[in-house]
Amino acid sequence: MILTVTLNAALDLTYRVPHLVPHASHRVREVTERPGGKGLNVARVLGALGFKTTVTGFVGGETGRVLRALLAADAAPDAADTSQDTADAAQDAAGSGTAGGATASVTDALFQVAGRTRRTVGVVDETTGDTTQLNEPGPHITPEEWDGFLAAYRDLLDQGPDAVALCGSLPPGVPVGAYATLVRETRTARIPVLLDTSGEPLRRGLAARPDIVKPNAEEIAQITGTAEPLRAARAAQRRGAHAVAASLGADGMLLVTQDGAWSAAVPERLAGNPTGAGDSAVAGLLSGLAEDLPWPDRLARAVALSAATVRSPVAGEFDEPTYELMLPSVRVRRAEAP
Amino acid sequence: MILTVTLNAALDLTYRVPHLVPHASHRVREVTERPGGKGLNVARVLGALGFKTTVTGFVGGETGRVLRALLAADAAPDAADTSQDTADAAQDAAGSGTAGGATASVTDALFQVAGRTRRTVGVVDETTGDTTQLNEPGPHITPEEWDGFLAAYRDLLDQGPDAVALCGSLPPGVPVGAYATLVRETRTARIPVLLDTSGEPLRRGLAARPDIVKPNAEEIAQITGTAEPLRAARAAQRRGAHAVAASLGADGMLLVTQDGAWSAAVPERLAGNPTGAGDSAVAGLLSGLAEDLPWPDRLARAVALSAATVRSPVAGEFDEPTYELMLPSVRVRRAEAP
Repeated sequence: MILTVTLNAALDLTYRVPHLVPHASHRVREVTERPGGKGLNVARVLGALGFKTTVTGFVGGETGRVLRALLAADAAPDAADTSQDTADAAQDAAGSGTAGGATASVTDALFQVAGRTRRTVGVVDETTGDTTQLNEPGPHITPEEWDGFLAAYRDLLDQGPDAVALCGSLPPGVPVGAYATLVRETRTARIPVLLDTSGEPLRRGLAARPDIVKPNAEEIAQITGTAEPLRAARAAQRRGAHAVAASLGADGMLLVTQDGAWSAAVPERLAGNPTGAGDSAVAGLLSGLAEDLPWPDRLARAVALSAATVRSPVAGEFDEPTYELMLPSVRVRRAEAP
Repeated sequence: MILTVTLNAALDLTYRVPHLVPHASHRVREVTERPGGKGLNVARVLGALGFKTTVTGFVGGETGRVLRALLAADAAPDAADTSQDTADAAQDAAGSGTAGGATASVTDALFQVAGRTRRTVGVVDETTGDTTQLNEPGPHITPEEWDGFLAAYRDLLDQGPDAVALCGSLPPGVPVGAYATLVRETRTARIPVLLDTSGEPLRRGLAARPDIVKPNAEEIAQITGTAEPLRAARAAQRRGAHAVAASLGADGMLLVTQDGAWSAAVPERLAGNPTGAGDSAVAGLLSGLAEDLPWPDRLARAVALSAATVRSPVAGEFDEPTYELMLPSVRVRRAEAP
């Protein structure tokens, strides 16, 4: 089992509109809802790859109820197709207890809080293809809820996951050193841990010595003060990470480990929607970590999954045939000192 | 009791962002949720004026649950202030059964359907002050649900409301002649009925001879093919309405009845947010209709409530001191033939 943590989980709404014009009124042509937040996206990709995955983090309110119902519906996809109301169908599906499909199911170990799970709204402009993102703030987490979560997290570690991913921003009220605490707990349990966050939570998390961090170019520059990727990755490594996997957008990924450094990319630049490409890269690294693959193979998986996500017609989903096609074509090279 | 009908009710979300830029990602600074759709807005204003009001229309899904909880919280405002999660507080309030405050409560007689109540998202740009509106489509209503609603509507008419307002757009699946049917049912019960809709539902509704229709300048021009307001209002009257109250934005209102025609406006043009001004005008007309006031007094109320809504710091709410101040200053004049 792989465990992903999403402290600031979200209900992601996607609105398709003919053309977004500020100050105008728009009829939304199509609405889709799905569980969101980095760790939940990572779990969805891992599930599609056939890995048993458990998700945790905070959930609450009516939006949290819909999020959990959608997670349950993903676990029982046949039941979800028969009803008009996704959430109601999902609740039916959860009640029937069936799990189906070729993909592995995602187990809900989310921690219930009093606040309301945030929504994010992605407005897709059908004329330009651009997405405008509106992200609600997360629920306020009390000190008692954080303590309760920590106890529940230790119980999840006792189940012996093969790897853990700690993902995304912190909701209000959670201590800024939260990820550092979770990294230490996980390493004490001798379970490999990946950290994907930014800013001060990343800075503090690095000092707790995670096995991998996966910043993007902007995040790593912000932390290290260095824009040159290899130099920045080595600087992040010196701050505590055993390995640093930096995602560089269309330029692929750069990986710095104690065994050496590699860069990897697909042979040609791909047009498409980069939403979720970073989360797919985390899923690739994590699956390779869980299976104890050599570093270059983990990197190849991460890059191929990212590319298959950019090329997918559905934002944030990865296209499986593209992944199968991409994986052997990823070029992994030793990275030279700059 | 006054009855308002909102067939396409909504959960209205307001997002405040520092500045809305298409294709960018935005942190929402503040989120507010409230029951929405024209008839629910009208009921809120009537309640604030001290009129007992009952609301009906379609409601369903998780968003419908939140909408009903918020309606219940409005009925018990003290309980709603004590909890972090509005919807949860609302449910507590509904459970406690208390009703409070100086305003009259709004009674929930919404009709439950299988589909999900739509959301609307108003994105307020704090730099420009403009609002960008995103309106989800409504739930699909089945023929059985429409029949069920009609039966429930007849039961509400049996309670003998003083007046009825039929408000807003039709959700998918509802017959385009729905408002014509409801107007006929209401007139058969000898209850005064106001219709506030647009397009084909308004065209068909007119033929059923409602007591008042309240189109805006654009809606009445679309129906009658005439841009000149007095000419257009008389044309709409010939199509069946006993009285036509046309809202003309900053130019106030024009009223054409069988007893004569009047126009009314506040003495000076007001800066502010026009959201909900039309719904406040309906509340003004309806309260005057319920109390059988002379036409010029109904019109003055409608214009003063509209103005107090434009001037309110909260979009869609009316400012009570402004209303008290405005009411005696509204200038009502006999309208001349153009």
